Amino acid sequence: MIVIRNIQELINHLSEERKQRNDLAVGLVPTMGYLHAGHVSLITRAKQTCPYVVLSIFVNPIQFGPNEDFDKYPRDEARDLQIAEQAGVDVVFLPTVEEMYPSPTKTKVSVSTLTTTLCGASRPGHFDGVTTVVSKLFHIVQPKQAFFGLKDAQQVAVINQMVVDLNMPVQIIPCPILREEDGLALSSRNVYLSAEEREQALVLSESLAAAEQLVHDGQVVQAIDLQAFVRKHIEQSPIAQIDYVEVLSYPRLEPLNELCSASDGLIIIALAVKFGKTRLIDNTIISLGGVPTC
Amino acid sequence: MIVIRNIQELINHLSEERKQRNDLAVGLVPTMGYLHAGHVSLITRAKQTCPYVVLSIFVNPIQFGPNEDFDKYPRDEARDLQIAEQAGVDVVFLPTVEEMYPSPTKTKVSVSTLTTTLCGASRPGHFDGVTTVVSKLFHIVQPKQAFFGLKDAQQVAVINQMVVDLNMPVQIIPCPILREEDGLALSSRNVYLSAEEREQALVLSESLAAAEQLVHDGQVVQAIDLQAFVRKHIEQSPIAQIDYVEVLSYPRLEPLNELCSASDGLIIIALAVKFGKTRLIDNTIISLGGVPTC
Repeated sequence: MIVIRNIQELINHLSEERKQRNDLAVGLVPTMGYLHAGHVSLITRAKQTCPYVVLSIFVNPIQFGPNEDFDKYPRDEARDLQIAEQAGVDVVFLPTVEEMYPSPTKTKVSVSTLTTTLCGASRPGHFDGVTTVVSKLFHIVQPKQAFFGLKDAQQVAVINQMVVDLNMPVQIIPCPILREEDGLALSSRNVYLSAEEREQALVLSESLAAAEQLVHDGQVVQAIDLQAFVRKHIEQSPIAQIDYVEVLSYPRLEPLNELCSASDGLIIIALAVKFGKTRLIDNTIISLGGVPTC
Repeated sequence: MIVIRNIQELINHLSEERKQRNDLAVGLVPTMGYLHAGHVSLITRAKQTCPYVVLSIFVNPIQFGPNEDFDKYPRDEARDLQIAEQAGVDVVFLPTVEEMYPSPTKTKVSVSTLTTTLCGASRPGHFDGVTTVVSKLFHIVQPKQAFFGLKDAQQVAVINQMVVDLNMPVQIIPCPILREEDGLALSSRNVYLSAEEREQALVLSESLAAAEQLVHDGQVVQAIDLQAFVRKHIEQSPIAQIDYVEVLSYPRLEPLNELCSASDGLIIIALAVKFGKTRLIDNTIISLGGVPTC
């Protein structure tokens, strides 16, 4: 495994590899580091279809709001490199902020509509930061496929929209959420949780699982009822502060009346909830094919 | 020469060509058609460094304002194809609006600062439309070099900023303005001019040439004086309606007090002037190296 911190060096290196191995399909796994089993699952998935895997680790300042956790976002380079090596990554790209933004970027890539709901509503400008940096990474690495976890399902939808709208020559591969044995979705931010918050946070995955069961049993028809069910479930935790709970179509993220009206036959139940100072997100995407109400 | 109207067909075709001719450097000349000698000079320049030249012809609706000339922008496909063939183009890419925008784009690429002055001030949203479509074309064609005329000097600066900020793997090659023998800058929009307007429009290139001479002779020190000189010159034409005359640094397009303070040693005198209903732009970029006042 090679560690590269310089953009031009990475471009040159990949160009050499491509020359030596004709038509080399590069897979890119973009991350903010502090790797966990969720990231490893993305790398493993990438290795299934791409003979060459680049992992980027970059905590991207322009996707954090002024009152968010950019400075204290967890970082552990040595551990990340160990995990990446074990997972079989070929190149880790580890640029500094100055390398990625030698001067403040005047150019932004932004996706409308999809970004006004869910985390986009709570974190204005967040997704512009995401699409801009992902666009930069795509241009630098020129991957055939890029792998993103569905824990950030809105991010997947937004990036896919960008790729389609701008005709980017890359295929977005959404990968399933990884969970702890007790159901908590893996997240680098879980490290912030106290023991009590960690315990209480289980209400998130539990509420989603219960809601999914309701839908599959055909016991709920209206999106608003499903949303109310999940909210009520989460409110059982005395310390949960709900940022949002939404039931939308996926990947268009359009509001719904009847669940069955979801344009692509998929709905997402998405939530963001604070436990103490830590904001967690989770979601489930449900296919309505075979659901009794449909 | 091949004419391709479908995006996927173009991608497949270029992919085949690249396979057959190892590491093929593709040059892209993006145009809105109604080709003239200015476009031909871009093609000729492209052929000097790129063994394979793609010419795109697309009147891009999203860069036109609601009261602008999208519908009546001059089009002549048969003549364009003839000119392209004679100039030695390999592929003409001629998509429809529906092909480029099967649904309205939710994604925009936008460049700040550089786009708030000159044509950006008169044409809000124009440059977002330009950078978005050029970004699409770059992703589709994946050119090694792309060729743009300096008549749209602001466009060249904006696109170059986008390429640098987003790490796009393409080199922007700015090409000199082509002029009629009497000095009028070539433009597809010149066809709109009546005989009298055509005659009066000479005041633009004349004013720029006179201003350039002043600078080279060291007779003007302040940007504001140079600007006033050009305005006064243009106002000699009774039918010229000035949209703007600006003296800025190039390519940063920053306002100047003393000409000598231009950050990169280059200034641009840029103007947009209406003759009847036709809005013409012209400019000159002056290197201050060797100018007596500097």
